[in-house]
Amino acid sequence: MDRTILRKQLESFLLEDIGHGDLSSEALFRNSEEGMAQLVAREPCVAAGAMDVAAQVFYLQNPLIQCSDAAPDGAIVAKGECLLSVNGPVVDLLKAERVALNLLQRLSGIATLTASFVQKTCEFPVRITDTRKTTPGLRIFEKYAVRVGGGYNHRFNLSDGVLIKDNHIAACGSIARAVERIRERIPHTIKIEVETDTIKQVRECLACGADIIMLDNMDIDTMKQAVSLIGGRALVEASGGVNLETVAGIAATGVDIISIGALTHSAPACDIGMDWDSC
Amino acid sequence: MDRTILRKQLESFLLEDIGHGDLSSEALFRNSEEGMAQLVAREPCVAAGAMDVAAQVFYLQNPLIQCSDAAPDGAIVAKGECLLSVNGPVVDLLKAERVALNLLQRLSGIATLTASFVQKTCEFPVRITDTRKTTPGLRIFEKYAVRVGGGYNHRFNLSDGVLIKDNHIAACGSIARAVERIRERIPHTIKIEVETDTIKQVRECLACGADIIMLDNMDIDTMKQAVSLIGGRALVEASGGVNLETVAGIAATGVDIISIGALTHSAPACDIGMDWDSC
Amino acid sequence: MDRTILRKQLESFLLEDIGHGDLSSEALFRNSEEGMAQLVAREPCVAAGAMDVAAQVFYLQNPLIQCSDAAPDGAIVAKGECLLSVNGPVVDLLKAERVALNLLQRLSGIATLTASFVQKTCEFPVRITDTRKTTPGLRIFEKYAVRVGGGYNHRFNLSDGVLIKDNHIAACGSIARAVERIRERIPHTIKIEVETDTIKQVRECLACGADIIMLDNMDIDTMKQAVSLIGGRALVEASGGVNLETVAGIAATGVDIISIGALTHSAPACDIGMDWDSC
Amino acid sequence: MDRTILRKQLESFLLEDIGHGDLSSEALFRNSEEGMAQLVAREPCVAAGAMDVAAQVFYLQNPLIQCSDAAPDGAIVAKGECLLSVNGPVVDLLKAERVALNLLQRLSGIATLTASFVQKTCEFPVRITDTRKTTPGLRIFEKYAVRVGGGYNHRFNLSDGVLIKDNHIAACGSIARAVERIRERIPHTIKIEVETDTIKQVRECLACGADIIMLDNMDIDTMKQAVSLIGGRALVEASGGVNLETVAGIAATGVDIISIGALTHSAPACDIGMDWDSC
Amino acid sequence: MDRTILRKQLESFLLEDIGHGDLSSEALFRNSEEGMAQLVAREPCVAAGAMDVAAQVFYLQNPLIQCSDAAPDGAIVAKGECLLSVNGPVVDLLKAERVALNLLQRLSGIATLTASFVQKTCEFPVRITDTRKTTPGLRIFEKYAVRVGGGYNHRFNLSDGVLIKDNHIAACGSIARAVERIRERIPHTIKIEVETDTIKQVRECLACGADIIMLDNMDIDTMKQAVSLIGGRALVEASGGVNLETVAGIAATGVDIISIGALTHSAPACDIGMDWDSC
Amino acid sequence: MDRTILRKQLESFLLEDIGHGDLSSEALFRNSEEGMAQLVAREPCVAAGAMDVAAQVFYLQNPLIQCSDAAPDGAIVAKGECLLSVNGPVVDLLKAERVALNLLQRLSGIATLTASFVQKTCEFPVRITDTRKTTPGLRIFEKYAVRVGGGYNHRFNLSDGVLIKDNHIAACGSIARAVERIRERIPHTIKIEVETDTIKQVRECLACGADIIMLDNMDIDTMKQAVSLIGGRALVEASGGVNLETVAGIAATGVDIISIGALTHSAPACDIGMDWDSC
Repeated sequence: MDRTILRKQLESFLLEDIGHGDLSSEALFRNSEEGMAQLVAREPCVAAGAMDVAAQVFYLQNPLIQCSDAAPDGAIVAKGECLLSVNGPVVDLLKAERVALNLLQRLSGIATLTASFVQKTCEFPVRITDTRKTTPGLRIFEKYAVRVGGGYNHRFNLSDGVLIKDNHIAACGSIARAVERIRERIPHTIKIEVETDTIKQVRECLACGADIIMLDNMDIDTMKQAVSLIGGRALVEASGGVNLETVAGIAATGVDIISIGALTHSAPACDIGMDWDSC
Repeated sequence: MDRTILRKQLESFLLEDIGHGDLSSEALFRNSEEGMAQLVAREPCVAAGAMDVAAQVFYLQNPLIQCSDAAPDGAIVAKGECLLSVNGPVVDLLKAERVALNLLQRLSGIATLTASFVQKTCEFPVRITDTRKTTPGLRIFEKYAVRVGGGYNHRFNLSDGVLIKDNHIAACGSIARAVERIRERIPHTIKIEVETDTIKQVRECLACGADIIMLDNMDIDTMKQAVSLIGGRALVEASGGVNLETVAGIAATGVDIISIGALTHSAPACDIGMDWDSC
Repeated sequence: MDRTILRKQLESFLLEDIGHGDLSSEALFRNSEEGMAQLVAREPCVAAGAMDVAAQVFYLQNPLIQCSDAAPDGAIVAKGECLLSVNGPVVDLLKAERVALNLLQRLSGIATLTASFVQKTCEFPVRITDTRKTTPGLRIFEKYAVRVGGGYNHRFNLSDGVLIKDNHIAACGSIARAVERIRERIPHTIKIEVETDTIKQVRECLACGADIIMLDNMDIDTMKQAVSLIGGRALVEASGGVNLETVAGIAATGVDIISIGALTHSAPACDIGMDWDSC
Repeated sequence: MDRTILRKQLESFLLEDIGHGDLSSEALFRNSEEGMAQLVAREPCVAAGAMDVAAQVFYLQNPLIQCSDAAPDGAIVAKGECLLSVNGPVVDLLKAERVALNLLQRLSGIATLTASFVQKTCEFPVRITDTRKTTPGLRIFEKYAVRVGGGYNHRFNLSDGVLIKDNHIAACGSIARAVERIRERIPHTIKIEVETDTIKQVRECLACGADIIMLDNMDIDTMKQAVSLIGGRALVEASGGVNLETVAGIAATGVDIISIGALTHSAPACDIGMDWDSC
Repeated sequence: MDRTILRKQLESFLLEDIGHGDLSSEALFRNSEEGMAQLVAREPCVAAGAMDVAAQVFYLQNPLIQCSDAAPDGAIVAKGECLLSVNGPVVDLLKAERVALNLLQRLSGIATLTASFVQKTCEFPVRITDTRKTTPGLRIFEKYAVRVGGGYNHRFNLSDGVLIKDNHIAACGSIARAVERIRERIPHTIKIEVETDTIKQVRECLACGADIIMLDNMDIDTMKQAVSLIGGRALVEASGGVNLETVAGIAATGVDIISIGALTHSAPACDIGMDWDSC
Repeated sequence: MDRTILRKQLESFLLEDIGHGDLSSEALFRNSEEGMAQLVAREPCVAAGAMDVAAQVFYLQNPLIQCSDAAPDGAIVAKGECLLSVNGPVVDLLKAERVALNLLQRLSGIATLTASFVQKTCEFPVRITDTRKTTPGLRIFEKYAVRVGGGYNHRFNLSDGVLIKDNHIAACGSIARAVERIRERIPHTIKIEVETDTIKQVRECLACGADIIMLDNMDIDTMKQAVSLIGGRALVEASGGVNLETVAGIAATGVDIISIGALTHSAPACDIGMDWDSC
């Protein structure tokens, strides 16, 4: 997480939650009053962002807040364990609490779900990757959480990767013409991926030298056939209909990458709360 | 959804996904090429934001895009049904597609989950409300989706409502002193809510005239006792441990409001795709 | 004054006044040259914002500037007394001077005028409040100054309070229908206020349980009648035609709140200057 | 008023007042409901900004709003006269109302006060100008209102004019050295003004060719002496202690410019309201 | 050039040049006064950005301005030929003129220089590419101009391509370990490029499967040797010491890509002026 | 360079180059790894911005980076000499490197070219100045570099100086009417400059008291005639067709100012690289 980018985003999140001030806390606490609290897991989870995100929210709200005992990214945290200790002016701890928790819960949720998929496929040489199906405004955070969970990132946005889909192909008349036309225009640093629905299309991809071939919503047998046909001449990505039940079977086909939108669009938040030391 | 606010947010979401341009589509389509597509439900859902959010994403990307057939907010949409038709320059449809879908999937997911909770409690005069456990940066969108699903909004942020919690009370010595101190400072337009764990605390709230009493993680019997004790002298809000199994029982205790963080932090996205008319 | 919000606003104010640089001071002073100065009242006033606003302008321009001797918010400062001492690089003191003074003069002006109204009504249990008639862009500052002067805040903006006016009522057909329709939609945390012109309307408000009843431009006798009629069943707010001559009479009617637009839209700035220590 | 700058500022003002939405109006009006209203002077004033500012607020909130009958800038408007007619969706008229009125009241207040000063000095060939004592964030608006009122602008900020003050002089040892040093560094397009307290300093300014000599807080006799001494070799600006009683006497001394901070920091807002056509 | 991104940048450029208004033009022209002018080449050049950039500046300043006769991107324009005709309110033409010209001159300068390099190497199957040595804030514009001139883009920034340099290698101990470590972490959509100084390093790159091998500041003979050694197993990029004299010789070595920082950091602006139709 | 302005600009430059992170460096270096490097001139140049710009880029990226040995602004630096030493976390040095170099190269390029013009005219009492032909977004930086090179700044933008051109004059009918109309409206702090093509126009300028007369594209003899005619009654600025061959001849005519667009629009970047200490 680059610090310049992070600061701008976290600042806007704080403004969203604080509005023009915390009516409750500003009325009840003097600025000098200090407190201490722990962010605690209410259920087992894979920690993501305790130091690089949650602690930064507290630091941004008030540089005098001290954070410690951060759970390392990727650590498996048991119910009741501490993810982060915070210490400083109570008013600012309360103002930052909700934003820090909302982020930590979401990111740990994504890491936890990703880790489950990774676990299911650990005996295969396959990457679990995310997609562009992220929460608008949070892509950099959510792709970070996927990495923490043991997954990998797919392209970040429309400008750092090429994915040729149905209607791109239709517009050009054939996969070959689409690949040729794209290759002629894009930077030489970018790979070309093509989405395929049939073995026939896979053949066309091989013929024109696509770097990555996506097998979209194919059944297991077709995927096996495609992997065999490709024979290492391109990276093979499986996509569509992936869940915790199906993922191992897909991995067993020999594909290199399995991309899963649900990692980011449907991971439930981990239950994490903030417990105050009695004072 | 106020248009000025919406425009600023959607613009930043588009920039996140487009980066410095769509390498694939800009290479393959002329600016003049037009296309038509439908945003289609791949599973049943309650529609939220088809016109007020998704269509606005397309309009913002290119004012020449035309949107029609928008599913009304709150409509129950069957698998295969259209949520929005779009028509215009293909390049801009492709650039706006992912952001529009990501928002529509998330908002419809929230509306759908909210509607389930509302359905479970429809025979009781109770409100299902959200909390501040929203996705950072998306609060205004997610609270809108809760309303679309038949739910209600709790306070928007720390500055438009008061909620007195444990450590606020501890800081003042008693509920009475906390309420008095707050009431003396906040605008007369704002209600005061107090979080309680015990019947004893409920009594203290009544004694000092709290406007809203939150029953936090109480069991059903204690909730009933609290509702009876309060007897209409304050609004009663149940919070904690609410799920689709428990919500009807909680509603039956007679509470006025049930607030549920999961509405926004853990609603799975609805599966919605974009189908292109063959061209 | 929340620090994150403050920093963004003060930064834009500095940019407005500095433009692309201070031609005069940058040409005449080395960066290392230090100076000392006092912000001094040229007329008696109630201090507002010496530490929380003016000093922050100096700190933002250059963190090496030191501020001391800040007049506490609400302090009555005599002509010639110091509101703030500053010490640091002369170039930055000069760059920050005008913004700091412009804010301090305006906020102290508002606090001073508010204090006059509060003084006139000190024997009555009544709140003097502001309105939304603030300077665009400065609402958070001006409402802070009202509190410093002993006043209270009314709603901050259109989203944290409800005020039903003539044309809202006309649109619904009656006060009762307007209140009912609003209550059904807004968060349970928000109070409902209705603007009334006649005793008949006051009765309608009582019948439908409005939380706050505004008596708009009523004469003293009608106000007394309204207060008596309401009998504590709602908060009563007087509005319109309030000035330093009339405010005590209005307070004597027994209203709970007197809202005064002039507090923020017409308070003259206090005369405050910056005196340099000879060097 | 340049349109690009204006749009950015007005947008932020609308966001400040609307927050995350207008709870009252959004609950009571359908988007399709239209209305008509007039912005009406409740006291005589010099109109400033009816079309170039207030109407733009409405257009920005919703381009479908139509504005007409705008009072021309500088027009003398009687009590009860219309400054602007607006027509369009009621919800958006209500959302833009307060920002439009707050700006129009303030700008017309400044124009009205400026016009009073101009009127008092109309028989003398003198300019009434503003200063940098403007409301932070509103300088471009307030300087516009001064021009509308028949006044003139002084420098806009620290980078488009030079004003050498006491401590600049002290830092260099003499006016001559300060002027020489500045002249050697600044663009040749910028004039040099020096603040003087004594006739001796005026002489020094003349000796080194200052373009503008400010007579700061001098009495009438000293001002006359200074004007006579300068004899047209520099522009002469009077500053300090100017009010509606003293301004004519100051103008009679023969100074070219009288700069008055109160034009912008202490002009009371004009009373302007919005009257709805019954519907 | 994506429209959302473009609008934000051009707006800030206009604000930079207009400041708080055009003192000269606003004083001399009524808003209704219209004029017509041509942007004309004062020397031969390759046109870049006439419609997609310069015309957009005028449209943004005032949507009523009409642009026509735009020179197509890549067109070779002779001295005296028109690049763009503009027609509309004179005040806004004058406000937008300088920004439009500054961009058009710079972009056409880059396209012209790029075209010279492309021309020198047209008989070889080689790409001329840019680098990250662009003007801060203008990367998207300058890379666009390179494409217009017949060149190609290298990676856009640090996040959409990998380039392993000296100190990356030193940190890992060897090229092999650096490549392996990077490949294990980055998205599968991103190619890996390694900078080499010696044939020995080229061999190491081949051994570990680098996608692109940069030959940095090698002499012609070493480059030939490297190309031969690589034998199509990786893309080969020449970098360093490239100018119009040396480029053909480098191309003749058989490298695939020649990257040239000077395309963007040292292209002189084309001389383009704005001629007004007499009125 | 004012620090508040600088910070905002540099932050956006860093974001442009870093994108969502440095894929290469973040994968290869631990955050704790430290390094040391020098920014070194690869050709002789006049240094501009080593401390005030380049070092600030590093500080902004990570406040833990230490900078030293900065070449003073205006210093003549030989090939191989160090312009700045940097020391700190390697990841952040690498992320800031390109932006720091791109700025330093461009600013030193402008300073070097400016110094050449200044050198050619050093025996005449003439100012070399820039124009508004700067890179959009970089005006404040480029005008700073001109000053560092021994040149002077012309007006910064359209709002801090007046320049009456052909079509302004045409709109008013004569130079006299244009000057009169402008003088009547602009602040008294702003000088009036008129662009002239003929001796006849110069006479008209003198008649109406223009402060500065620009001789636009006149030949040497006409310039001499104009200077003689003006005789010190106005500043004289030569413009058009200025290059290193012609500038001394132009200076010899006795003009006060020579303005040169090429200083900023066509100065080649200085070649400056970053050399790492072996580690």
